[in-house]
Amino acid sequence: MTEFASLEALRDACLNLPDGDQAAAEAVRMRHDTLTKPPGSLGRLEDLIAWLACWQHLPRPRLDGVEVLVFAGSHGVAARGVSAFPAEVTAQMVSNFTAGGAAINQLARAVDAELCVVPLQIDRPTADFTQAPAMTEEEFLTAVAAGYDAVKDHADIVCLGEMGIANTTAAAALAAGLYGGDATDWTGRGTGVDDAGLARKTRAVAEALAFHREHLDDPLQVAMRLGGRETAAMLGAALGARHRYKPILLDGYVSTAAVAPLAKLHPRATDHLESGHVSAEPGHRRLLEHMGMRPLLDLGMRLGEGSGAALSVSIIRAALACFDGMATFDHAGVSGKE
Amino acid sequence: MTEFASLEALRDACLNLPDGDQAAAEAVRMRHDTLTKPPGSLGRLEDLIAWLACWQHLPRPRLDGVEVLVFAGSHGVAARGVSAFPAEVTAQMVSNFTAGGAAINQLARAVDAELCVVPLQIDRPTADFTQAPAMTEEEFLTAVAAGYDAVKDHADIVCLGEMGIANTTAAAALAAGLYGGDATDWTGRGTGVDDAGLARKTRAVAEALAFHREHLDDPLQVAMRLGGRETAAMLGAALGARHRYKPILLDGYVSTAAVAPLAKLHPRATDHLESGHVSAEPGHRRLLEHMGMRPLLDLGMRLGEGSGAALSVSIIRAALACFDGMATFDHAGVSGKE
Repeated sequence: MTEFASLEALRDACLNLPDGDQAAAEAVRMRHDTLTKPPGSLGRLEDLIAWLACWQHLPRPRLDGVEVLVFAGSHGVAARGVSAFPAEVTAQMVSNFTAGGAAINQLARAVDAELCVVPLQIDRPTADFTQAPAMTEEEFLTAVAAGYDAVKDHADIVCLGEMGIANTTAAAALAAGLYGGDATDWTGRGTGVDDAGLARKTRAVAEALAFHREHLDDPLQVAMRLGGRETAAMLGAALGARHRYKPILLDGYVSTAAVAPLAKLHPRATDHLESGHVSAEPGHRRLLEHMGMRPLLDLGMRLGEGSGAALSVSIIRAALACFDGMATFDHAGVSGKE
Repeated sequence: MTEFASLEALRDACLNLPDGDQAAAEAVRMRHDTLTKPPGSLGRLEDLIAWLACWQHLPRPRLDGVEVLVFAGSHGVAARGVSAFPAEVTAQMVSNFTAGGAAINQLARAVDAELCVVPLQIDRPTADFTQAPAMTEEEFLTAVAAGYDAVKDHADIVCLGEMGIANTTAAAALAAGLYGGDATDWTGRGTGVDDAGLARKTRAVAEALAFHREHLDDPLQVAMRLGGRETAAMLGAALGARHRYKPILLDGYVSTAAVAPLAKLHPRATDHLESGHVSAEPGHRRLLEHMGMRPLLDLGMRLGEGSGAALSVSIIRAALACFDGMATFDHAGVSGKE
């Protein structure tokens, strides 16, 4: 079991990261140019395989094990009426995941992925972050370690997902805390709050930013004070995956905000991450732009659960099928470019 | 075997189209709102199932049979040096499809689709459309009928693809002929022509527009004079699918330009079509905007062969998996919106 003894120990792990394997990525690019298609004509499908190779450290990358990790947490700020759904839905949806009835169950099966649901003390909400740090240092580090250890050894790629009523409020607070701007810039309707709910949500984010304003220059303090257990765990999973040569697919606003502290700590800390999709939540698109990430899909989804990340696995599987299965110009007797 | 005795007989078939089943689409929307997710939170995945239902005329749509049709044709205008590849690549790639070595073979397998390659007299290029109609009326109608009949009865959805060296030149001419503007607005690098090739390509399109200028007000004349056998066949397949209650996924610039005459003939003639992706060819994005279509994927692909259409099947399969497999709020004991 991983333990981070202190924020500083975690910071060390965030700052001392293995690099990608550029030679493996280059081998992919060279092989792609021998395949029976105009050079570069598979677009991002070609880039994705080079990225896989780079972060798996394998010139012939693999997708035998695809893991969807769904972390669930409960948020004290839910009591402020920031969500369209009652707080008990977090636990109910965890049961639904176990029973196989949620969207992520169907999506994971559709892309032949293993679904692993990790509830994080969902009977113990975090503190209301408008009035206190959401987590103590110990709570935060425990959640980060749980995420770090949730990444399975046999996974070739990991999708990050979450469930937690009120966690788009946390995502907005994290994004605003890290990248500045007003609460209104980052706060959206989440699962579908009405105008009054949106006003409460925006006010909660603004109050949180004011309460924690003296700590916003440290990304780990932001993660601890404004996040939730599930966002802390996603940060841990992204870190653990990097240290174990596993690329990561992000899902929506919450998962992206969860790993954003890593990007703030180290300019290349999120190079092993791709954004599976951009959600309908306007703050998500803005956050991806700040982080320099281009989402693979843009389908107006706003569900969480890892749904957009899992869906994007189908794109990567198809890309690998082309890379592995296509004939070369020589072998197929097809004339090259004139 | 379908026969169109004349352009006017074909025009009749294009103007007398079955409508969609709005009741089936509404049944899908109602069921979606009972499933354990915030209403609308699967975004376009929900819309796609309503669209399938509408055009399959089934409240519980099916994707058991997915067909990828790849039509291949040869273009007289290829002799003008408009492509980065020699004209013989069309036949070589048809052999590659048969041998299973092309990208579309891998992509069709990845989405569990049946691939059907239909070569259309590839040893007989169309006329150089800068100096004559590309096809005679008989040649055009024969190709349209071949496409119409290529749609299999057991197909639940059909992906349209093509192979034909120089056919992005034809696509540019079709788009410009139908929607106006200069040749430069619609002409791109296709499979990767250099600056001199792009200049030759643009000039060929401009000359074609000038030569046929008195016939551009009739979309079928445009299709016959500026298209190729494979674009005519795709038009026929789109028409045949509509008459047989089968939705269609378009691929890139060529397939979209191929069906654009239908859109010009009848304002709802392309309602049973979705755009699988937008290619890297700038004219494609412009053409989709003219036709009011939003592509499902935007991954910088520019290969043709039906590759982007086939890839988008994975999105629709995932959408149907959610629709068919998810639990309802009642069944799962999950609280609804407050």
